[in-house]
Amino acid sequence: MASYSGDKDAYLKRLRRIEGQIRGLQRMVEEDKYCIDILTQVSAATKALQSFSLELLDEHLSSCVVDAAKAGGHEAEIKVREASNAIARLVKS
Amino acid sequence: MASYSGDKDAYLKRLRRIEGQIRGLQRMVEEDKYCIDILTQVSAATKALQSFSLELLDEHLSSCVVDAAKAGGHEAEIKVREASNAIARLVKS
Amino acid sequence: MASYSGDKDAYLKRLRRIEGQIRGLQRMVEEDKYCIDILTQVSAATKALQSFSLELLDEHLSSCVVDAAKAGGHEAEIKVREASNAIARLVKS
Amino acid sequence: MASYSGDKDAYLKRLRRIEGQIRGLQRMVEEDKYCIDILTQVSAATKALQSFSLELLDEHLSSCVVDAAKAGGHEAEIKVREASNAIARLVKS
Repeated sequence: MASYSGDKDAYLKRLRRIEGQIRGLQRMVEEDKYCIDILTQVSAATKALQSFSLELLDEHLSSCVVDAAKAGGHEAEIKVREASNAIARLVKS
Repeated sequence: MASYSGDKDAYLKRLRRIEGQIRGLQRMVEEDKYCIDILTQVSAATKALQSFSLELLDEHLSSCVVDAAKAGGHEAEIKVREASNAIARLVKS
Repeated sequence: MASYSGDKDAYLKRLRRIEGQIRGLQRMVEEDKYCIDILTQVSAATKALQSFSLELLDEHLSSCVVDAAKAGGHEAEIKVREASNAIARLVKS
Repeated sequence: MASYSGDKDAYLKRLRRIEGQIRGLQRMVEEDKYCIDILTQVSAATKALQSFSLELLDEHLSSCVVDAAKAGGHEAEIKVREASNAIARLVKS
């Protein structure tokens, strides 16, 4: 079971809102809205995705990474490596 | 008429693909997929949004901003200010 | 003459302040300061660099790009392409 | 003792290289170099700072956070919270 299962509904709700933002962007393009207004909406959607991923990551660190560390052994190292790579992708994206 | 009208179909296609990525993320959460795999998909969607906005901005600079500059007067200044603000939002998001 | 010449002193002052932040980071590492505090300072220096580049870019758009557009011809296209590439590098860095 | 002490020399070397990049930027401004070339150098310095902070963060997770988790108790939670906040600042800067 994934560590975020408890908040599954909250996560799904956020993703549905982001999906709505992307559909809103499609309507803006269809209606020939002004570029700058479209760009403002893209920034809002990007920020929403970013904040979704930061929350997911926080939960991953508090559960998976901490649990692996408690269990001891090589697993913690693997989990930290995985998390660090995910963080690098987020920082660079 | 907005400056991106010629590429409207291409823009809509990209946004539909991004919408598909966001729906894919919802499926991953519903199926309790591993956090790190979800984060990888979030980074991909963020990059797709970013590249959409960079293309839209490039077209805005080549058309609206350049046209305003050619027309002369105060309008170019306003267009550059707007574009700079949009760029700042993108860089910070 | 570069378009930012008028603000040269202001730009140099900002860069010297950023240089000071980087030297401050070296002192923190030398004195074994806490990682998280060092990371906070890195974020501050990154933001300062970012805001420096956004200002430089704004000035470049208002002067070089607008002047090339007014002059007409192929030059405006080249300048916009260059600016778009620089913006993409900033957004991705 | 901070967790990065082992790599102190490597960290200091990287920061000195970044300091050199910032001084290089000052020279470019003094010599009225072309905006776009300056922006390219700013992106390089920003990327170097980013990669410095990702490495420091990786080390912080593998040592401080993992050690706190092993020790058990409330401390792990505090360390994860701190790390998550630092990650959020990096992602947003």
